[in-house]
Amino acid sequence: MSNSEANNRKTINKVAIVGGTHGNEFTGVYLVKKFDKFPELITRPSFETSTLIGNPQAFQAARRYIDTDLNRCFAKSDLENSELSFYEQTRAKEIAQTLGPKGNSKVDFILDLHSTSANMGFTIILVNNDPFNLQLAAYLSSLDPLVRVYSSIEPGKENTFLRSLSNFGCCIEVGPIAPASLKGAIFQKTEALIHATLDYIEDYNNGKLLSNTYPLTIYHYLKVVDYPRNEAGELEGMIHPQLQGRDYQELNPGDPMFLTFDGTTIYYEEEATVWPVFINEVAYYEKGVAMCLTKKEIVRE
Amino acid sequence: MSNSEANNRKTINKVAIVGGTHGNEFTGVYLVKKFDKFPELITRPSFETSTLIGNPQAFQAARRYIDTDLNRCFAKSDLENSELSFYEQTRAKEIAQTLGPKGNSKVDFILDLHSTSANMGFTIILVNNDPFNLQLAAYLSSLDPLVRVYSSIEPGKENTFLRSLSNFGCCIEVGPIAPASLKGAIFQKTEALIHATLDYIEDYNNGKLLSNTYPLTIYHYLKVVDYPRNEAGELEGMIHPQLQGRDYQELNPGDPMFLTFDGTTIYYEEEATVWPVFINEVAYYEKGVAMCLTKKEIVRE
Repeated sequence: MSNSEANNRKTINKVAIVGGTHGNEFTGVYLVKKFDKFPELITRPSFETSTLIGNPQAFQAARRYIDTDLNRCFAKSDLENSELSFYEQTRAKEIAQTLGPKGNSKVDFILDLHSTSANMGFTIILVNNDPFNLQLAAYLSSLDPLVRVYSSIEPGKENTFLRSLSNFGCCIEVGPIAPASLKGAIFQKTEALIHATLDYIEDYNNGKLLSNTYPLTIYHYLKVVDYPRNEAGELEGMIHPQLQGRDYQELNPGDPMFLTFDGTTIYYEEEATVWPVFINEVAYYEKGVAMCLTKKEIVRE
Repeated sequence: MSNSEANNRKTINKVAIVGGTHGNEFTGVYLVKKFDKFPELITRPSFETSTLIGNPQAFQAARRYIDTDLNRCFAKSDLENSELSFYEQTRAKEIAQTLGPKGNSKVDFILDLHSTSANMGFTIILVNNDPFNLQLAAYLSSLDPLVRVYSSIEPGKENTFLRSLSNFGCCIEVGPIAPASLKGAIFQKTEALIHATLDYIEDYNNGKLLSNTYPLTIYHYLKVVDYPRNEAGELEGMIHPQLQGRDYQELNPGDPMFLTFDGTTIYYEEEATVWPVFINEVAYYEKGVAMCLTKKEIVRE
C-alpha cells in the first residue's frame, strides 16, 4: 500500500481471538483457554486482546453445534430477527453484541480459529479483500509453505461467518485433525501463527510495515462438488483414494475424483484444472459438500 | 490344532456381520449397506451370512451413540435387567435376541466392524482365546503387515462388547479415519479382510485348514493412560507430537508421551518397554483414555 493509503488507515486498538465457534474444533478452544491462563502471551503494547469461546454448549457436548451451525448465523437480517431462537441463533446475537455490530464493530480485528479433518495445512481464510487483510495473509503464508490463502468471497453475497462482524481479521483453518481431538504439532504451529499475527498487528500499528510486500497466492472458491448419492440422498461413494489428502494439489481433467461403493471410479471431467480444498471434511457430509473447487491465482510472485 | 481337536469342533453355520455398533463409524455401516445390496458378496456355500446395523439411531445422528456406548451394554446382568431403558440398553437387548443369547447364540460367528481416529491400521481384536479365533487372527495378520492382533481379554472379567454374544468371531478396527467419514483405501482393504474371513470360514467348514499354521504376534492390553488433567478434570495436555500416530511402535522409558499446553514434555517413566495402541482415539477423551499400553507377545515366529 502507499503511504497515503496507510495514513488513512486506523490503528487496530482491539483484537478478539475466538475459539470453538464450532464446539468440536478443540485446537481453538484449548488455545483460548491457554491464553486466558497466560494473558501475557497475547498482550502487545499497542492494542488490547480479548478472547471468546464461540459455542460453549457445543464444546461441552463435543459437537460442532447444538441446533444449527453457529458460523452460518451472522447474516445481518438474522441477527436482527427476534423470532430466531435456536441456541446458536441466540448465541450469534450475543456475540454480535460483544464484538459487533456488523459495520460498526467494537473490536477492530477478529481472529477465528477453526480446524478440519481435511488436509488443509494452515489455511488463512480471507474475510474480505481489504488490503490490510491481504497483506497479513501474504505475510503469514511467507512463513511456511503449509500456510495457504483461501478466499470464499462471492461478490454481492453477504458473508454470514462470525469473522464478518469485523472488517479486519481472518480465520485460521488447520488440519488434518479429527473433530473433538488435539494434535500437538498442529496446536504448536497454530499458536505460532497467532503470535505472528499479533506481532504483525503490533508492527502495523507502529508504522513499520509500510514498504513490505510478500508473495501472495490466493485459492479462490469456484463451487462445491457433492458425493455420489442415490435418489434418496444416501451416499453411493467416497473420495477416490488417489484424491484423498491432496488438498491444494492440481486436479486435472481425467483425474480420479470418487470411488463408488461398488468399485467404479468417477473422474473429473470438466475442462479446467482446479485445486480442490476441504476434501472429505467430516462436517460437510451433511451439507452436501465432498470438496470445494478453487482456482489458483498468483497475485504476486 | 490336532485332528482330534478339529473333529470336536462344530461347523460354522451362521455368520453375522455387524456395522455401526458405533453410529459414526461409517466404514462398517456402508460396507453392510453394500452387502445388503449385493448379498452374493458375502454368500458362501457352507454357511449363511446375515448383516446388522448395530445402532441405527446413532448412525442417523452421525454420533457414536445416543444415550450411552452400545458396545459396553452386553454384560449378561445388564441384558437381563429390565430396568435399564437407555436407547442403547434397549437396543442391546434386541441385538442379543437376534444374535444371542450369550453362551447359546443363534449365530456361530460375529464379525463386528469398527473404525478409529488412531493409527491402528487393520487391527483384529480377539473376543476370546478360542483356538479357532486365534488361528483366524494369525491367518489375517499374515496377509498384510498392517493387520495386527490385539487382545483386551482380562482373565476373570466379563467381556461386555457386542462381539461377546458369540464364541467365534472378532472385531476389525480400522484407522486412522475421522468419525462420521469414509476413506476409500480403508473401505477397500476392510472389505478385502471381510472376504478373507468368510473364505477362511468356508475352508474351515470344508476341513481344509487343519494343518495350516501362521506366525502370530499378539499385543496384550496392560492398562490405560489418561491425558494430563487439572483437578477439575480438564485437559492440560495432548499426545506428544513424537508419539502421535505411532500405534504399535515401541515406547521406551524416557520417550516423550505428552506435551502440556504450556509446552512441558511428559516422558514415559516406567521400567518396561510397552507398545501403545488407540493413541489419541477421539471417542476415548470422555473415557479418560489417551492410549492403551500393550505388551507384545510373539506366539509363533
